[in-house]
Amino acid sequence: MTADGVRVLAFDTFGTLTDWFTGISDAVARSGLGVDPAEFTRDWRSRYAPILARVESGELPWANLDALHHITLRDTAHHFGVEVDDDAAASLVRAWHELPAWPDATPGIRRLRTRFVVCALSNGDVRLLVDLARHNDFGWDLAAGADLWQHYKPSPETYLGLARLMQVEPAQVMMVATHQSDLDAARSNGLRTAFVARPDEWGGAAKDDSGSPANDVHAGDVLDLADRLGV
Amino acid sequence: MTADGVRVLAFDTFGTLTDWFTGISDAVARSGLGVDPAEFTRDWRSRYAPILARVESGELPWANLDALHHITLRDTAHHFGVEVDDDAAASLVRAWHELPAWPDATPGIRRLRTRFVVCALSNGDVRLLVDLARHNDFGWDLAAGADLWQHYKPSPETYLGLARLMQVEPAQVMMVATHQSDLDAARSNGLRTAFVARPDEWGGAAKDDSGSPANDVHAGDVLDLADRLGV
Repeated sequence: MTADGVRVLAFDTFGTLTDWFTGISDAVARSGLGVDPAEFTRDWRSRYAPILARVESGELPWANLDALHHITLRDTAHHFGVEVDDDAAASLVRAWHELPAWPDATPGIRRLRTRFVVCALSNGDVRLLVDLARHNDFGWDLAAGADLWQHYKPSPETYLGLARLMQVEPAQVMMVATHQSDLDAARSNGLRTAFVARPDEWGGAAKDDSGSPANDVHAGDVLDLADRLGV
Repeated sequence: MTADGVRVLAFDTFGTLTDWFTGISDAVARSGLGVDPAEFTRDWRSRYAPILARVESGELPWANLDALHHITLRDTAHHFGVEVDDDAAASLVRAWHELPAWPDATPGIRRLRTRFVVCALSNGDVRLLVDLARHNDFGWDLAAGADLWQHYKPSPETYLGLARLMQVEPAQVMMVATHQSDLDAARSNGLRTAFVARPDEWGGAAKDDSGSPANDVHAGDVLDLADRLGV
């Protein structure tokens, strides 16, 4: 079986368990900024990985995701030529704490927990993950956020940090994500990997959901992952 | 109301949510050591606070609770003049991961979570807390173990560390415990405090459940705490 020896599942959250495109574009639509919500949302999200990389390179000091979202929101607003006042910015940054889950995520986690320890392993901070879990009834065993290590994925500290907290070997952890870069980094640190397809992650814009043949599992969603892991 | 401004409840686990006396004395009885299970269990537990204090003083290097339980188990076995082989030791140390909950704990947490963020704040490590939660369906929002900070209560790093992770002020956290020393330390770091009476914590041996008048709340159990906090 593909999950031989796996004891812990580590879930990416933005995109893999939650539908950030719908949550954020709805919040943008409500904000009264007068921009195209879909385009504004995609632009904001596209600034996410680059700013995390600037923190990891040491160019920026450690800051949690809310703080980074405030910076990238300002950049996106500038790009669209609109002003975002403090209340609107707080509300938009807060929307990342209340993203809707994909419909299969909560029942899928519930099933997987009967066999595995299920953790979030996210670039959100612990408090953001707690809020997401309360909003969506995720019921996972641990909300492992980037602030536990003050490092963002794909840095080794995150993958190895979770294995250490769970007191297992890296090979006993399976990273679950809809982003191949996350899975490649996990595998290079000794973890197993499962790709979950999320073709609508970018709200209808193109997304590569092919997944690498190097992954241990390729699943259609979290319930399909449970099937494939024999739960 | 006594919980004005409180957003997060931080629960002690050994004694407050779980009945270590029953869980460990049952494991001792099954171990075939030929000792009085109640006396052996009380002796083992009495070595807990002193060894944590030796870690906090710097006399011993950081070690997680499983490692410290192995050391104190050897001391207790020596005191009783018995040999504990490796398998028996592993099984007895493991029993701390599978303690039974007091009957009010799980339903009490479920009620309190409708109003508050509910965390464990324990000298157990994260993995031990995850195991306890899976065993008893605690359903808390976060298992905050001592390994997150490599410090044991009553050190300030633990109380302030949880407030920081939850992104609230210390006064917005209420420590919940059946040990006045834990609550006194929490209060001296700015937290609110709730005492939960557990007269049977030591299995019929005397225990002071009076609680300090300085506590914000004095509750008979976790469900009574929910009543008193107006949940």
